[in-house]
Amino acid sequence: MEIEVKFRVNFEEAKKKLEALGARLLRTEEQEDLYFSLPPNELLRIRRIRNLGKTYLTHKLIVDPGRNEEFDEIEVEVSGFEEMRKILRRLGLQEDVLIRKHRLVYRLGDVTFELNQVEGIGEFLDIEVISEDPKEAREKIWESARKLGLDENDVEPRLYTELMKEKNG
Amino acid sequence: MEIEVKFRVNFEEAKKKLEALGARLLRTEEQEDLYFSLPPNELLRIRRIRNLGKTYLTHKLIVDPGRNEEFDEIEVEVSGFEEMRKILRRLGLQEDVLIRKHRLVYRLGDVTFELNQVEGIGEFLDIEVISEDPKEAREKIWESARKLGLDENDVEPRLYTELMKEKNG
Repeated sequence: MEIEVKFRVNFEEAKKKLEALGARLLRTEEQEDLYFSLPPNELLRIRRIRNLGKTYLTHKLIVDPGRNEEFDEIEVEVSGFEEMRKILRRLGLQEDVLIRKHRLVYRLGDVTFELNQVEGIGEFLDIEVISEDPKEAREKIWESARKLGLDENDVEPRLYTELMKEKNG
Repeated sequence: MEIEVKFRVNFEEAKKKLEALGARLLRTEEQEDLYFSLPPNELLRIRRIRNLGKTYLTHKLIVDPGRNEEFDEIEVEVSGFEEMRKILRRLGLQEDVLIRKHRLVYRLGDVTFELNQVEGIGEFLDIEVISEDPKEAREKIWESARKLGLDENDVEPRLYTELMKEKNG
């Protein structure tokens, strides 16, 4: 299970704090996420990571709708963004929203930090732990969050797709 | 466009004739094709090529239903068979049939020869040309077929999925 909490942050400040905390920069990603319309509590996206030349197809079941912190995720790497897009269209899936992010991925222990500039939406830090024990995962996430000076008021419970649709609204 | 004619053959005889004709063996494939239920004239399959450690997702529109020689195909390589299978199931697709083939792939000029032992169904030679000109492609296919001693009586117009379902009856 993927457990993840999204915080609103200032990108440069959060970057400094992560580095001061000793988190290690794993990689930079220029992401282009194309989401398809699905029933509520399901997400399907094709992600192109432009700078790495990689594309992924990902399906997520949202285990805790509304809160949006627990995801049952399946992902495959695919060889072509446009080909995958055409196959999904042929299967009758409708394109929903396109989200572009500049992302820095940091790691400290078993906690992953995804620091994002999301085009047209703002700056966010996703703190993530992969675990079969959501309670323990949340404790680890919140321990890191507190060290970065983040609290409940900084949490953004809406999905990026929801934020984008409210903006386009 | 993929233009392809399927012939019933004796595997060993056809192999000898292809080699005598000067066709070059490109590779051997141990294929496992999982097809999903779709409306008529569409095919969706995940192909695992066991000996090469590769997996492909392929969608085909059958341009000439019944005859089944002309396909508008989109294909991507994917990193995992089981993950792709789970994503398609989550999207509501139903598994239809599983087809296993031992295949030799030969090439001569721009004609591809796929010599197949299909588990439970028989031995076949698919002669294929990729072209935007189906007429010209068919001429090339039939020129090769005649050189291999094949004629209209050897043609098998049914899809492998149809043959498998008739067998399972």
